[in-house]
Amino acid sequence: MLRLDYNNMMEAAVGSRGITEAELEALQGRFADAHTAMVSKRAAGKMDFRDLPRNQIAAAEEILDYVKETEARADMDVDAFVLLGIGGSALGPMAVQQAINNPYYNELSLEERGGHPKFYVADNVDPERLVYLFKTVDPKHCLFNVVSKSGSTSETMSQFMIIKELLERELGKEDTRKRIVCTTDQSNGNLIKIAREEGYKTFYIPAGVGGRFSQLCPVGLLPAAFCGIDILELLRGAAEMDDVCKRGNVRENPAYMYAALHYIAMGKGMNISVMMPYADSLKYISDWYAQLWAESLGKRYNTRGEEVFAGQTPVKALGVTDQHSQVQLYAEGPFDKLVVFLGVDEYREALTIPKSFGDVPSLGFLGGVTHNELINVERMATEYALQKAGRPSMTITLPKVDERGLGQLLYLFEAATAFAGELMGINAFDQPGVEEGKNAAYAYFGRPGYEEKKKELDARPAKSERYVI
Amino acid sequence: MLRLDYNNMMEAAVGSRGITEAELEALQGRFADAHTAMVSKRAAGKMDFRDLPRNQIAAAEEILDYVKETEARADMDVDAFVLLGIGGSALGPMAVQQAINNPYYNELSLEERGGHPKFYVADNVDPERLVYLFKTVDPKHCLFNVVSKSGSTSETMSQFMIIKELLERELGKEDTRKRIVCTTDQSNGNLIKIAREEGYKTFYIPAGVGGRFSQLCPVGLLPAAFCGIDILELLRGAAEMDDVCKRGNVRENPAYMYAALHYIAMGKGMNISVMMPYADSLKYISDWYAQLWAESLGKRYNTRGEEVFAGQTPVKALGVTDQHSQVQLYAEGPFDKLVVFLGVDEYREALTIPKSFGDVPSLGFLGGVTHNELINVERMATEYALQKAGRPSMTITLPKVDERGLGQLLYLFEAATAFAGELMGINAFDQPGVEEGKNAAYAYFGRPGYEEKKKELDARPAKSERYVI
Repeated sequence: MLRLDYNNMMEAAVGSRGITEAELEALQGRFADAHTAMVSKRAAGKMDFRDLPRNQIAAAEEILDYVKETEARADMDVDAFVLLGIGGSALGPMAVQQAINNPYYNELSLEERGGHPKFYVADNVDPERLVYLFKTVDPKHCLFNVVSKSGSTSETMSQFMIIKELLERELGKEDTRKRIVCTTDQSNGNLIKIAREEGYKTFYIPAGVGGRFSQLCPVGLLPAAFCGIDILELLRGAAEMDDVCKRGNVRENPAYMYAALHYIAMGKGMNISVMMPYADSLKYISDWYAQLWAESLGKRYNTRGEEVFAGQTPVKALGVTDQHSQVQLYAEGPFDKLVVFLGVDEYREALTIPKSFGDVPSLGFLGGVTHNELINVERMATEYALQKAGRPSMTITLPKVDERGLGQLLYLFEAATAFAGELMGINAFDQPGVEEGKNAAYAYFGRPGYEEKKKELDARPAKSERYVI
Repeated sequence: MLRLDYNNMMEAAVGSRGITEAELEALQGRFADAHTAMVSKRAAGKMDFRDLPRNQIAAAEEILDYVKETEARADMDVDAFVLLGIGGSALGPMAVQQAINNPYYNELSLEERGGHPKFYVADNVDPERLVYLFKTVDPKHCLFNVVSKSGSTSETMSQFMIIKELLERELGKEDTRKRIVCTTDQSNGNLIKIAREEGYKTFYIPAGVGGRFSQLCPVGLLPAAFCGIDILELLRGAAEMDDVCKRGNVRENPAYMYAALHYIAMGKGMNISVMMPYADSLKYISDWYAQLWAESLGKRYNTRGEEVFAGQTPVKALGVTDQHSQVQLYAEGPFDKLVVFLGVDEYREALTIPKSFGDVPSLGFLGGVTHNELINVERMATEYALQKAGRPSMTITLPKVDERGLGQLLYLFEAATAFAGELMGINAFDQPGVEEGKNAAYAYFGRPGYEEKKKELDARPAKSERYVI
């Protein structure tokens, strides 16, 4: 199992910005209340993401069959799996793919990829992205996975519309049908309606599971399976972590403790939380986590309707790389952040530095050292330097980056986020703050029903040339 | 030229968290002092990065000749250019490559790449990275660019040692020599010494130019040229921006105004600055900028030696993608950030959404819209939503993402960072805070001269199992 080490969050290690035993003790009542809420919400079907590790096994098996069939179909010849999705629909699949597979996956041969297709994600609506993609892979040899729970995500649906028309023009309706697979709600929204009318293969997002908590349902499992990732192991790891995260005692529950430490740190003015994996393979975990933490906890109102403007800003870093970019600020800047290191006990490859320049002082000591040691020692050294500078940090260590460990890690962060929401007294599962921007865009394009918003937009004062250089 | 629009930084647009005319006026004296310092430091040779756009033209021409020669050499057959460097040596080259070239560059054919080699950066010392890289490209067909000013960067030098040994074993010393090109200081450090002994081709980093300000010297120019990027246009754009950034009046100088607005915002509690390009091509500009801003301004002491713990944490975001990840927090969370949008007037490709689902309310309005409009309207809508929520932002717009515009943008941020350093009264050009971690790592590995640090490390109290779950 992964482990959480929070020695360096404590006052004993980092001094006055650290957390005390007394502070942890004083919150016992609140921890107990939050735990009770977690248990009762789960029982009431209001925390459905928690059941995915167990209730998605059947879906995972269906996915594995579908992948096997599709890859075997001579009439399809799937060269690339292209995911059309944004937000949680894209961040989780990218994080898992990067964690498990060769970082240069798409440059490997079919054989080196284990017979699996290349993997691309088209999340942004930058016009250059799809054009460049289709200069690189032939859309007629792709499988497109359209992922949108509501079926009304403008970015994803517009990409779907472009690709559907392109394929139908080039391949006809029959051949297009088999190249589109949808992941969406089982009964609500446009996408399920379109999928049924068109006869697209479909996988379902459980009704109570939102985008950023959807990695362990078909949203994440389908793309992972097409990349040869063992999705049953992913679920197994998550289920193991679920068992641990059921514990009522904060001191025995890494998700609860993770959330509690962040909650106390926020109260001490740490409005920034840095996620710093020491492994290239875990780099995109920070991106996935940044959505989870930011969108879940960044809220104007608490559940009692009071204005709180809550939240903590997640920052993505990468060790050792960002020692040469961000650590200067972390060590010497404002006392406004805590750092979460992600470490790995055993990397999948080993590399030894030769004893080439024994007589050069700044190089000689490197001879015979492995990169495996070097990266872990640099993590220890950075942790130590931050500790000496009075900056709190904690370290989550994975024994190895594999599907099981990854399932544990993803689930840990999801449970921690939900518990943080309880401690903060906010709803961690909505995102009302994105509506204003969506509505303004709808209004601009003249979508029916947004006439009032259009008037509001048109009534904006013009920008002053005084403030343009 | 690019333009800076800061209407939405002002109180008139965003209310009480905005900046007032009176605040700008009150700082005129400080602006004037900072400008004087900028001018006199430049004249005294203490801001050498500012002269690169003009004094690196000869180096750029030498680089272009070297690229042409190398690519034409039948005995080399360079399939990939591999950069060994970390921090500024890696972030700038990656940002420029991603901005100008196809995002799937390495998957294109040699012809589609204009005859140029593939491009890889090995910055991290994750042991998996180089192993996977050499499963993907044959090191015997690579050109390795070792970039380290001091020649003592452990990460870069250890990679160099591994690769040198590997090549010499497989190719012999003669053939290895032509596959290694160094970018380093002209006279100091190990790398120049080794390069001369071994007979490696070498380009020089001007003595007064630090890593994060080095994109417009051979550190950035050599890899860019090998990717077919017009480095003379890059310098030309930077020189144009230098002319603009010489202006003493803050209101006419976008770099000064950028810094001034950030400086005032910091004083109002905005300890976070988000960089959010609305273009996939500019995504990595945020990574490069994050080092520049964080490492330059995150300082414990001011230039008078007083403890200030200064700095502002840069956050990397991407539009529209992060509207589905971070904007909820930006709109509803704490009033602790300002957002810098990067916009583009004219994308290099166009894509129109077909009129496929005219009768579906949430899709019909998209028919006939281009992705070019969609991404720009979503930027406008997000800016508007943040403005309504009282969150300050500014927008830098590039007419087009090309070498000239990019040169302007990079130079703008560098000059702004230097000016911000003056306003804050700190030294923007050092990084003393990274020494502690480096020294601890040296000590761990038993590097001679670090015996005291080793004792200190060994004397650390063991971590308590009480704080490990």
